[in-house]
Amino acid sequence: MSQITPRTLSGFMELLPAPQQQMERFLQVLRETYSLYGFTPLDTPLIESAEILLAKGGGETEKQIYRFQKGDADLALRFDLTVPLAKYVALHAGELSFPFRRYQIGKVYRGERAQRGRFREFYQADIDIIGDGKLDVANEAEIPAVIYATFTRLGLARFQIRVNNRKILNGFYEMQGLSEQAGDIMRTVDKLDKIGPENVQKMLLEGVGLSEEQADAIMRFISIRGTNAEVLEQLAPYQGRNKLFDQGLEELITVVKYLSAFGVPESHFAVDLTIARGLDYYTGTVYETLMLDHPEIGSICSGGRYDNLAAFYTDRQLPGVGISIGVTRLFYVLQEQGLLNEELNTAPSEVLIIPMTEDLTAAGQAATFFRGCEIRTQLYTEQRKFKAKLAYADKLGIPFVAFLGEDEAAQNKISLKNMQTGEQQLLNLVDAANVILEDMRVRNNGKLIKS
Amino acid sequence: MSQITPRTLSGFMELLPAPQQQMERFLQVLRETYSLYGFTPLDTPLIESAEILLAKGGGETEKQIYRFQKGDADLALRFDLTVPLAKYVALHAGELSFPFRRYQIGKVYRGERAQRGRFREFYQADIDIIGDGKLDVANEAEIPAVIYATFTRLGLARFQIRVNNRKILNGFYEMQGLSEQAGDIMRTVDKLDKIGPENVQKMLLEGVGLSEEQADAIMRFISIRGTNAEVLEQLAPYQGRNKLFDQGLEELITVVKYLSAFGVPESHFAVDLTIARGLDYYTGTVYETLMLDHPEIGSICSGGRYDNLAAFYTDRQLPGVGISIGVTRLFYVLQEQGLLNEELNTAPSEVLIIPMTEDLTAAGQAATFFRGCEIRTQLYTEQRKFKAKLAYADKLGIPFVAFLGEDEAAQNKISLKNMQTGEQQLLNLVDAANVILEDMRVRNNGKLIKS
Repeated sequence: MSQITPRTLSGFMELLPAPQQQMERFLQVLRETYSLYGFTPLDTPLIESAEILLAKGGGETEKQIYRFQKGDADLALRFDLTVPLAKYVALHAGELSFPFRRYQIGKVYRGERAQRGRFREFYQADIDIIGDGKLDVANEAEIPAVIYATFTRLGLARFQIRVNNRKILNGFYEMQGLSEQAGDIMRTVDKLDKIGPENVQKMLLEGVGLSEEQADAIMRFISIRGTNAEVLEQLAPYQGRNKLFDQGLEELITVVKYLSAFGVPESHFAVDLTIARGLDYYTGTVYETLMLDHPEIGSICSGGRYDNLAAFYTDRQLPGVGISIGVTRLFYVLQEQGLLNEELNTAPSEVLIIPMTEDLTAAGQAATFFRGCEIRTQLYTEQRKFKAKLAYADKLGIPFVAFLGEDEAAQNKISLKNMQTGEQQLLNLVDAANVILEDMRVRNNGKLIKS
Repeated sequence: MSQITPRTLSGFMELLPAPQQQMERFLQVLRETYSLYGFTPLDTPLIESAEILLAKGGGETEKQIYRFQKGDADLALRFDLTVPLAKYVALHAGELSFPFRRYQIGKVYRGERAQRGRFREFYQADIDIIGDGKLDVANEAEIPAVIYATFTRLGLARFQIRVNNRKILNGFYEMQGLSEQAGDIMRTVDKLDKIGPENVQKMLLEGVGLSEEQADAIMRFISIRGTNAEVLEQLAPYQGRNKLFDQGLEELITVVKYLSAFGVPESHFAVDLTIARGLDYYTGTVYETLMLDHPEIGSICSGGRYDNLAAFYTDRQLPGVGISIGVTRLFYVLQEQGLLNEELNTAPSEVLIIPMTEDLTAAGQAATFFRGCEIRTQLYTEQRKFKAKLAYADKLGIPFVAFLGEDEAAQNKISLKNMQTGEQQLLNLVDAANVILEDMRVRNNGKLIKS
């Protein structure tokens, strides 16, 4: 038969079974945590009409999108979860209750140039809260709590949620008479971490064309640092000069005020006036999240407040706030950095039952009993040498092997071998199940990310 | 702004939040049950090279496939999970342990003519056990146990797993000298449920062109009925005349023998000699699963034994056995028939906290406490009338509302209202959490499908 060499497309993640088990844990933690905060799961099609997905237009998106014809239909694969959400809310608004809180975890597609650590198919995990007409700022205060809970439950210890407010930035530039240059300035300031303050100042003068005085004002502003209280204190003198600024500051004060009530320790949160998050979408609070030991990765969870989700599909004003985690890339980085907890069981089962008799009845019964105890169980039925069977369990990392020979079957017992310690015990099924369940309890106590 | 009318493509399921919660339960039961039987989760790309997906060729597939160019690449969306599995196993064979047991739950794409209850994007939920060179028949005996556990855990009571063996069929036709007509005969026999035995006999005579004697032999064979023991007994006289038949019968006897050890009650299993499941793929045991109260839906879980998974990609002989559930269609039918258990909570949360003071600190603390107890909690922070807030909880079906006014905050308590009974209690947070957790325990005791 003429064969085709099997391959997976470049830029598409395809994991081996053990890391896939870790990825499943990752997704499960996200589902559970998002649910705890009152977000309801959504699932929208991967394919939409191209007209719907490209309603907003825009060059980058259009270049990267997977777009194709099927019959007469002009179709495309979604490139994020926000546009499908906008469509969903506009389409079903009459059947939804607002504020509408949804999470969605799904694959999105961008035909970027393939390179190491960049994916063309990747999971995003988004939450959004959508209001009908208006949405209270308290929702913006709650988002850091979701971010904190998510990464803490994943096991990450050293991370920081950085927050700013676009109204503060825009108000500040208005104050300085620099509204027109605001875009250029923010793009320049965004390079602060990479090129340092001297170069930023130089670019503000030469690139953007600001006066010395204007550039100094900006440099003074973005160098405001300290605890949350200290930053807010340094912002106070700017108050009373611009309405937008005052509103933004008030919102920021509210967000900071409720941190502790929402369970976010000050250590994991910082007001950072250099954060802008793009130019045209966000209108209020903006969020970034940094791994403190790996700042080079950039933000692992970002988002913000926007004034109108679905202007392209409906006249209804739908303000919202949301964040997104680029799951595939983050998982890839965690894997590369060796940050995934390898003590967690990545085997397909907790116990492998190896029958030592030709008749499989007793072994089948033992498997059925264990499964009834919610123990993941595999029965090994291939005709192979004993050593090969043990090697199978060993290679997969299955924690326990249960032997069932004639002696064991006659006594209604099994020989349970702990593959890590080598200890082997003759036990009845109930006792064996308890040994395995206790081992699972201890093992599953660990979190996905090593801290 | 020029707007585009929001719409979702026809043939693509997009659920409202409440049914989506039920769908999530469905998928979670599948994940858990498949895991219990020692299957490891896989996730492969939705897009593959068209050459890979179409290696097998075949007209129907090629017509229905979503295929498109991106740059120079000829790409397509997967139309099932079996071809990607074949590619995966061929590609990663050196890194896998055999038997390789995987489950995969994911969306697949077929551009069929859209009609009610037919989907172009739908979830399949597959399990397969792949051997390297050979695979013991005991694996075929274990599959009905997975099917039984899956539907029982979903809550379905009245269903039957029907099993046959292709070797019995092919051996029988060989015996009758009808190997060449076997395909036509099986296609005809497959219509038995729809058109009745008289019409099948007529078609065998006139359509397939069999003699009276041949048609009678077939009608006698496919009318074999009874308990498993009775069917096997009636098959015994055919033994010793054809090697393939004898092998198939031996396999069927093994599958039936271990049913009880694997926990499958006889009531949910039947040997059915009319089942063939397609013509060219399956080579041994084949499975179908019928809802006894809805036979018109057809099989809700099917599969079988095959001799070679990945002949198009590798010389390695990879026999296997697998089953597939068409999740989207089954979910659609369950919903249409009103068979989903509406007592399960489909709200985004268990409790809605309604602050009665301007300051949200106490309410935020209560929310944080409940979430720490693994209670899905939403804080309602919009400025609306009290009645509107209660209506919000009511419309979403949130089981509890917690009011937090100045009195409550001063006492470090909340007023917890059970939305179903109307009962309201002033409780400290620990007692309130226990009331909610107990309600969750009772509620979650129910299964997804009404039985």
